[in-house]
Amino acid sequence: MPRQVDYDSRRRRIVAAAFALVSEQGLEGMTMRDVATRAGVSVGAVQRCFSSKEEMMAAVVEDMNERVSTRARDRIADSADPDSAATMLKHTLAGIMPHDEPTLAETRAWLAFAAHSAVTPAVAVVQRKHYEGLAELIALLLRTAQASGDVRSDADADGEADTLIALADGLSMQILTGRLTTDSALATLDRQLTALRAAQ
Amino acid sequence: MPRQVDYDSRRRRIVAAAFALVSEQGLEGMTMRDVATRAGVSVGAVQRCFSSKEEMMAAVVEDMNERVSTRARDRIADSADPDSAATMLKHTLAGIMPHDEPTLAETRAWLAFAAHSAVTPAVAVVQRKHYEGLAELIALLLRTAQASGDVRSDADADGEADTLIALADGLSMQILTGRLTTDSALATLDRQLTALRAAQ
Repeated sequence: MPRQVDYDSRRRRIVAAAFALVSEQGLEGMTMRDVATRAGVSVGAVQRCFSSKEEMMAAVVEDMNERVSTRARDRIADSADPDSAATMLKHTLAGIMPHDEPTLAETRAWLAFAAHSAVTPAVAVVQRKHYEGLAELIALLLRTAQASGDVRSDADADGEADTLIALADGLSMQILTGRLTTDSALATLDRQLTALRAAQ
Repeated sequence: MPRQVDYDSRRRRIVAAAFALVSEQGLEGMTMRDVATRAGVSVGAVQRCFSSKEEMMAAVVEDMNERVSTRARDRIADSADPDSAATMLKHTLAGIMPHDEPTLAETRAWLAFAAHSAVTPAVAVVQRKHYEGLAELIALLLRTAQASGDVRSDADADGEADTLIALADGLSMQILTGRLTTDSALATLDRQLTALRAAQ
């Protein structure tokens, strides 16, 4: 096996192990040693891939964001009307929220990183960039839906994008506490999107 | 000084120290020893007040919730129209969101506990109860505002309560990342409340 392939597959295994640990136990007490044990590699191998815990965590966050995006794209492609901005909007937002055990695990890890970023400015920067990109995407989809007459023309696209993202995050937290089911949270999100819809 | 007074004041000092540590560093690596050092008491004294870290954290959460409620009550009492349900609704929700350094510290600690509760069922129970109480209060205020003609009669009070709470939580997270200011987050919350208002 060429060295690069070996390195990449080991890196992926370490990211997967770190993700599993964070989603099960939170960030508290997660050490490079725990991650190495879970990944079945030496601590030295972890250190060759990631110079710090922060760098490793950034890779986990990146991997999670990628999975969320891929899932949204897949859902859009599988939908009845994949080219409609309203469809993209709905699936992008619903895709943030957990709906089964793997996505619940992702959401637990996401919340752990969010809490960590609140006390670690370097991590907050990564998170802020992610949200800026997401807000731009949602605002763009809202404007596209306004242009095609699907969304009310008087809605403030940037403001509504902030609302929808905050709502999806807050609902995800409620699903994690077990107070809302995924279905009731999705119904709440749908009500918000319906209120944005232009009168037909 | 009578023993009970001594015990109570020590307990308060320990809760304040634990809160300060969580809001500064998150829950990671916070030990009973750290808390004792910060509070200026012995580890034994901490253990006499709290039999476990979980119990201590529950006391911190309770203390925080109390401060949020007190602040909401104060804001309502100070407002121009303290008896209006719409005023209570607005200040209760705005009171959840951080607006200065002490409330930013509270929100950082809140997020740390939220992340912790997602991987610790016993803590999730406490959090779920808190949210159930909050949702009941918000729904009651919405129904009262509907009865007085301030809020649209066709709004689903329980559903809108879930929306408003999730929105306030999600906006608080955006303030913590530094992507939204308190003012822009409050404007977003206001837009949501305005949309609920009955046509005059």
